[in-house]
Amino acid sequence: MAAVENLALIEKYQRTVTSTIPLTDYMQWRIVRLDPWQIQTNIDLLPNINIHGTAFAGSIYASAMATGWTLLKCWYDFQGYQAELVAAEASIRYLQPVAGDFVCRALIDPNQASYEKLTKRLGMNKSCGYPLTVEVICAEKICAILTISFVFKCSS
Amino acid sequence: MAAVENLALIEKYQRTVTSTIPLTDYMQWRIVRLDPWQIQTNIDLLPNINIHGTAFAGSIYASAMATGWTLLKCWYDFQGYQAELVAAEASIRYLQPVAGDFVCRALIDPNQASYEKLTKRLGMNKSCGYPLTVEVICAEKICAILTISFVFKCSS
Repeated sequence: MAAVENLALIEKYQRTVTSTIPLTDYMQWRIVRLDPWQIQTNIDLLPNINIHGTAFAGSIYASAMATGWTLLKCWYDFQGYQAELVAAEASIRYLQPVAGDFVCRALIDPNQASYEKLTKRLGMNKSCGYPLTVEVICAEKICAILTISFVFKCSS
Repeated sequence: MAAVENLALIEKYQRTVTSTIPLTDYMQWRIVRLDPWQIQTNIDLLPNINIHGTAFAGSIYASAMATGWTLLKCWYDFQGYQAELVAAEASIRYLQPVAGDFVCRALIDPNQASYEKLTKRLGMNKSCGYPLTVEVICAEKICAILTISFVFKCSS
């Protein structure tokens, strides 16, 4: 039963992202695992190649950004918060060429101080920043690490 | 005559980028100004929208990355250096939402110490890092600033 519910969650957010961020569809960005605390996406190399035949730096970043955004959107929908989620800044390190189809992974750690602050602020309907790290993996190697400073903007 | 040569240069690099990084074609990323020292590209909002109806953070980054890469590739082809150009890391700050078609701009400043170091190292056929800043502009406002640490990799 849990697996069926999870599949529905994946389909819901895949539909949301595909229909509102068409670039993700072009990139063949697909959610394969999702709950409010973790996400995994798979991305095809072919639409994302560069002149070296590996993944374009911009595609790697965009795939990881969409992955991080989707996890936080799923999390705050699950918590029932009302907020607009935007990226304020981000840094990426490219560690290895991405020479095939690749994976993006992120998780929310409720034991971190940043998480405690976030839930406290959103509980008061106040805006708050939140840093999220997304790993980009190909052939079982971490090829890039994206750190995003998200902001949950509350209307009050 | 200079304008005609410049158009040929634009067409040459547009063709190179479009054919080797297909994502740029999907994004409607177009070079409108290029010489070995500066570049301007125009990007359509429509294929790059997000859930807010503004440009997706990943598209903004990818457009700016392609712009920076193309300028440095044009520069080193012009100088006659043999090197492979890759991005090692990058940071982006999102200052304003991008609510329409947008522009990316970058230039190489030969008066900077980083430029002097680069030409010296490449002249010895040695690898070298080079930082490049790309501005993302919409409706005459700077909406994002991307700073890329490129590496020119020489085979020796």
